[in-house]
Amino acid sequence: QTFKNIYLKIKTAADLVVQLSTSLKTKPDVVDFGTVFTDHMLTVEWNANDGWQTPLIRPFGDLSLHPACSALHYAVELFEGLKVYRGDDKRLRLFRPLLNMERMSKSAERACLPAFDQSELLGCIKRLIEIDQDWVPHLGPACLYIRPTFIGTEPSLGVKKPNRALLYVIMCQAGSYFNTELSLWADPKYTRAWKGGTGDCKMGGNYGGTLFAQLEAGSYGCQQVLWLYGEDHQITEGGTMNIFLHWINEDGDEELATPPLDGTILPGVTRQSILDLARKWDEFKVLERYLTMGQLCSALKQQRLKEMFGSGTACRVCHIGSIVYEEKNLQLPNQDKHSLSSRIATELTDIQVSR
Amino acid sequence: QTFKNIYLKIKTAADLVVQLSTSLKTKPDVVDFGTVFTDHMLTVEWNANDGWQTPLIRPFGDLSLHPACSALHYAVELFEGLKVYRGDDKRLRLFRPLLNMERMSKSAERACLPAFDQSELLGCIKRLIEIDQDWVPHLGPACLYIRPTFIGTEPSLGVKKPNRALLYVIMCQAGSYFNTELSLWADPKYTRAWKGGTGDCKMGGNYGGTLFAQLEAGSYGCQQVLWLYGEDHQITEGGTMNIFLHWINEDGDEELATPPLDGTILPGVTRQSILDLARKWDEFKVLERYLTMGQLCSALKQQRLKEMFGSGTACRVCHIGSIVYEEKNLQLPNQDKHSLSSRIATELTDIQVSR
Repeated sequence: QTFKNIYLKIKTAADLVVQLSTSLKTKPDVVDFGTVFTDHMLTVEWNANDGWQTPLIRPFGDLSLHPACSALHYAVELFEGLKVYRGDDKRLRLFRPLLNMERMSKSAERACLPAFDQSELLGCIKRLIEIDQDWVPHLGPACLYIRPTFIGTEPSLGVKKPNRALLYVIMCQAGSYFNTELSLWADPKYTRAWKGGTGDCKMGGNYGGTLFAQLEAGSYGCQQVLWLYGEDHQITEGGTMNIFLHWINEDGDEELATPPLDGTILPGVTRQSILDLARKWDEFKVLERYLTMGQLCSALKQQRLKEMFGSGTACRVCHIGSIVYEEKNLQLPNQDKHSLSSRIATELTDIQVSR
Repeated sequence: QTFKNIYLKIKTAADLVVQLSTSLKTKPDVVDFGTVFTDHMLTVEWNANDGWQTPLIRPFGDLSLHPACSALHYAVELFEGLKVYRGDDKRLRLFRPLLNMERMSKSAERACLPAFDQSELLGCIKRLIEIDQDWVPHLGPACLYIRPTFIGTEPSLGVKKPNRALLYVIMCQAGSYFNTELSLWADPKYTRAWKGGTGDCKMGGNYGGTLFAQLEAGSYGCQQVLWLYGEDHQITEGGTMNIFLHWINEDGDEELATPPLDGTILPGVTRQSILDLARKWDEFKVLERYLTMGQLCSALKQQRLKEMFGSGTACRVCHIGSIVYEEKNLQLPNQDKHSLSSRIATELTDIQVSR
C-alpha cells in the first residue's frame, strides 16, 4: 500500500468501442425523476495492474457484480449529476460539465478510487449523449439528467483500497424533482456530515444514512430535512440541496448568503453558479458565511427575511415555504415573480438553453 | 411514505429452495481474509408490494444489479460478520449469532431497509453452513467467516426509501486478519462517526470514508487508524475494532475499560463478550466509559497502563503495540502470556470450539 494514487489515464475517447442497441425503447412523456433510462450506457473498467481499459458504450442493462464487491459492503462509491439541455436553437449543451468532472476527481481521491483523465471522460460522455440525443426532450426548457457513477469492485471483504473499479454513466429523464414549494424539518438530533468526514464529496455514504431522517421529516408533513450542525444549530444543507438566504442581514444590508465550504458542505455546481451570477449583478452583498437557526428566526421575526431557497442540479432552484423547528412551524416569505429564486431560475434557464 | 416499517416475515427457512452447484471448488489452505468464497450463497429478495420472496441457496456467483440500484449510488447497504467454528468434538457452532441478527435488524431499520424475521434468517444461514460444511477447516481452532449483506435494489435515482431490496449471505475463509501486534495512527483530523450519524450501525457508509485515513496511517508505518472524537481526543475505535484499555485507573484501581455505546461506537459482539467474561471473573473493575488520549498518555507515563487491545469478529482480540500521536510514537506495554488479551483470546477460543 502506497499513499500515492498512481495517475492512470482513461484510454482516450477516440478508442471508445460502441455496441448499439438493436431495440430502442419508447420515450414516456412525464416521469418521476430518475426512473426511466436511455437506450445506452458507458462503462470503463479499471484494475491496479493494467490501469484503465477501453471505454465501452453498450445497450443499457444490468451490471454483473461479485457479491463481495467493495461498493456493496463498504460503500466505496461516488457519483455525479449533470444535465444536458436542448437549446432554443436545437443544439445540445452541457451546463458547466468541467465542474462536475473536477468534483468527481476529488471524490475519487477521497474514496481511494483511481484518478482518471477528466477531459477524456467528458469526451466519452459527449459521445454517449450524441448516441441517445433523441432522449433530450424537444419541447420547452427540458433536459436529460446524466449520472456518472464510480464504484470499487474489488471482490474481497478486506476493508482496503480497491484494486478493481468500474466507472459507468447512465442517463435518465429528469422530470421534476419537487412540484411545490418546499417544507423542511430541522432537528439537531440527526447530522448529515461533520468535520473530518466526507460531506464535501459526492460519496454514496453521505446519502444512505439520511433516509431515516427524511422519513421522520415526512411524519411532520415536511418534504425534506434541513440539516443542522453544532450547538448553535448552523444551517448546512436541505435534503440534497445547498441553502441560500436572501435577507437584510444583522447590519441592515441586503445580502445573499450561503454556508461556506468548510468540509461539511457539498460544493454544488448550481450553488457556485448562483454565487457567480449574483456577484456579477453586484446589486447586494453576496457572502459565504455561517448561518444559524437563531439568526434565521430573528430575521423572520424582524421581517428581514426576503426569501430562503435551495439549489441543486436535480431540483434546480427551489423556494422554501416553511420550516418545522423546535415545535414551531415557521412560515417563510412567499415566492412571487419578484423573488430572487424566480429571477435566478429564469436567468439560469436562459443560459442553459442559450437564449 | 409512512414512518412505519411494515413488518414482513422472511418466508420460513422450511420453504427454502436449494440449487446445488455441480462443480465444487478446491479449498486452498491459507488465504487472505475474505478472498476465497465457498460453493454456495443464500439470496432472499424483497419488494414493497409482495414482501419477502422464497429464500434461495444457489451456486456462488455474480449478482445482476440495475445500474441505478440504490446500494451503488446512495450506499443503502449494511452487513454483518460472524463465524462458525468446528469444535474439538467435530460439531459446528456459531458464536452468539442472535446478537448479529439483532444488530442487523437495527442497521436495517436505520438504513430504511425492511424488517425481517431474525430466527428465520438464522435458519436459512444454518442450512447454508450445512451445505458448505466441508469449508469449515478440520484442523486447529479454525473457522469460516459468514457475511450476511443487505442492500437496497430500487432501480431509481431518487434519494428515498427503497421499494426493492436483496438480502444475501456469502461465506469465506477467515485466514488471519492481522499477523503481528498492531500499530495505530491517531490524528483528530479524520472522524469515523459522530453524534446523530450511523456509527453504531454496520452500514457500508461508515467504511468507504475511512480508507483514505487508513492509507495515511500506512504512510506513518501504521496498520490502522485509531479514531478520535471531539476536542478532548476521545478514543473511539481502531480501524474496524472496538478498543479496550487494561490499566490502573486515575483512582488507583485495576480496570478494564472501553468507550460507551453513545451512538458513535459499533456495538461489537466480541466487545460484549469480553465485557461479559470480565464481569463474570469479577477480578477488577469493568467499565464502559470515555477514554481520552490525554488519559492514555498520563497512564503510560506513570506506568499505569497494563495493555491496550482491539476486538472484533474478523480480527478477534488484537494486542496494540504502538500509537503514533502528535508526532510521538508511543510504545505500549508488550503482550505476554499473562496479558489480559492472551487470557481472553484463549477463553473465547475455548468457548467457540467447546473445550
